[in-house]
Amino acid sequence: MKQGIDVHTHVVPEHFPSYAGTGKNVPWPSMHHDHCGHAQVVISGKNYRRVGQACWDIACRQRDLDGMQLAHQVLSPMPELLSYWLDIEDAKPLIRHLNDSIAQMVAQAPAQFSGLGAVPLQDVDAAIEELGYVMRQLRLRGVEIATHVNGVSIGDPRFEPFFAAASALNAAVFVHGLRPAGSERLVGPEALAQVVAFPGDVALAAASMITGGMMERNPDLKICFSHGGGSFPTVLPRLRHGWNTIPMVRDAFSVDPSITARRFYADTLTYDEQTLRLALNTFGEDKLMIGTDYPFPVADSAPLATLAALGLGKEQLMALRETNARRFLGMPLD
Amino acid sequence: MKQGIDVHTHVVPEHFPSYAGTGKNVPWPSMHHDHCGHAQVVISGKNYRRVGQACWDIACRQRDLDGMQLAHQVLSPMPELLSYWLDIEDAKPLIRHLNDSIAQMVAQAPAQFSGLGAVPLQDVDAAIEELGYVMRQLRLRGVEIATHVNGVSIGDPRFEPFFAAASALNAAVFVHGLRPAGSERLVGPEALAQVVAFPGDVALAAASMITGGMMERNPDLKICFSHGGGSFPTVLPRLRHGWNTIPMVRDAFSVDPSITARRFYADTLTYDEQTLRLALNTFGEDKLMIGTDYPFPVADSAPLATLAALGLGKEQLMALRETNARRFLGMPLD
Repeated sequence: MKQGIDVHTHVVPEHFPSYAGTGKNVPWPSMHHDHCGHAQVVISGKNYRRVGQACWDIACRQRDLDGMQLAHQVLSPMPELLSYWLDIEDAKPLIRHLNDSIAQMVAQAPAQFSGLGAVPLQDVDAAIEELGYVMRQLRLRGVEIATHVNGVSIGDPRFEPFFAAASALNAAVFVHGLRPAGSERLVGPEALAQVVAFPGDVALAAASMITGGMMERNPDLKICFSHGGGSFPTVLPRLRHGWNTIPMVRDAFSVDPSITARRFYADTLTYDEQTLRLALNTFGEDKLMIGTDYPFPVADSAPLATLAALGLGKEQLMALRETNARRFLGMPLD
Repeated sequence: MKQGIDVHTHVVPEHFPSYAGTGKNVPWPSMHHDHCGHAQVVISGKNYRRVGQACWDIACRQRDLDGMQLAHQVLSPMPELLSYWLDIEDAKPLIRHLNDSIAQMVAQAPAQFSGLGAVPLQDVDAAIEELGYVMRQLRLRGVEIATHVNGVSIGDPRFEPFFAAASALNAAVFVHGLRPAGSERLVGPEALAQVVAFPGDVALAAASMITGGMMERNPDLKICFSHGGGSFPTVLPRLRHGWNTIPMVRDAFSVDPSITARRFYADTLTYDEQTLRLALNTFGEDKLMIGTDYPFPVADSAPLATLAALGLGKEQLMALRETNARRFLGMPLD
């Protein structure tokens, strides 16, 4: 029997409803299908990304899941669809459509698929309401959020009620890079933002959840940082040293950041054995989970080989393949 | 006989000349001494940082160098003094004063101290002129530059003539974080910018030197990334994977980035054995050099213990303690 849960995969709905609001020049997405296995996601009249059928087609995903020798996949939105930059009244129906689409995909093969929804974090009250819908009505496992909301780190106190609600609902929170800090300091093609600047952006978000005290105030929060926690493992020793030597930093939070870091979940998407091992040692054997970025071109297509390279014992391997993900997602530990 | 060269230490001149230009509200630095071992660096009427006597006093530095069991120290400016935001006519005399001050400090004990100067990179022609002065008149070893110049990455093609000149003069280029990208996404005290955001900023600069083709076009450039190369070692596998899988990234540069990365020098300032080992494996045994951030409070006060933790052989240890730095700095390999 196959085992292994991939917590980091993305979906794009097959269709979006037409924009029905009253705004002007709203960056509302639409899908332009070539009916030969691909579609263009168009936003604001521009091609945002060409995506494959696997983005919306569960049968394709089942075939690929088989090929990757995994048992289960967690569906989460393509990050650009999180739509924090829309007016809240525009964002609400878009996010709702996204969540309903994910739930419908999960419903087609619930043994093989779980879902993480989206919430309009540009309005914390609305986000909490949608989180309730995602968890209670749709029975998804939690939500994907970005590293920041229009430039405000998720560690900012304004998001406290959201994280408190996520804790109360036992919702898994999966943090993904989006419009990363420093993109304007890259030299080369636009794609470099995701390639080069995502890891640092994830590190800033993870650090902020510590330095702003959010983790201390929410002891039951289940939160995962994608892309192996990004560069956070290289920032942590410096943060710890700063906490030990700079009084203002010491005063900002009270628990050794390397201890709080072991509350973070992270995925295995590091593209390198050594950085994967660093993530393992930073977050712990009970926190790392398979993540591939499927079905995007940069995906890790052989995640079990990635894990095998670590040379783990049977029990540790089982934890990384499946048990940690079950705990993160609130699935039975059978 | 003591051995060991610390390539990452900072100085602040004991005094700055009064501002003599015609600008208004120019952020010109001044020193306010308490004559009890400390001074306030004041910029724009505000306390920028309280610094210790070791910042300008060679006798203090000699005592501490002894305490750290090192033989030699490379002096470079406190990064905020690089002053890229000044009008070029204001920057020129300030940078000149900085360089002359460093040269005077070196002259007091040239066996124990070398210098890296500054250049006003907001004007590339002026920067090249000052580089000539630094190398030919002052006989410093090279220059410290920041990761970006007013938000423009050092990998931007506009800086090509500067790097070409540095190569031609065999000048060592030491890259330091400054006003890092993502500072606005931190939550907590201002000091976190340096603690949390420096590593990512250094990573962006290092990546840009590759993705913009600067390293390929300047095969003789000697460049060092401070703070262990920041988060670059965690970004590199992702950059390499992107280069292998995304055609636009592939087209941007032609050499495997993990090969180019081995042309980068880096220092040991990672605060952690595991991340230090990652830097060692990323940049190579012939590229890592001792760096401490002396005399600032976050400094690594026992750099030889830091190195010892790696359990290197005698020859490798010698390379990291001294030989690599001699090669980087253009000092005799005696």
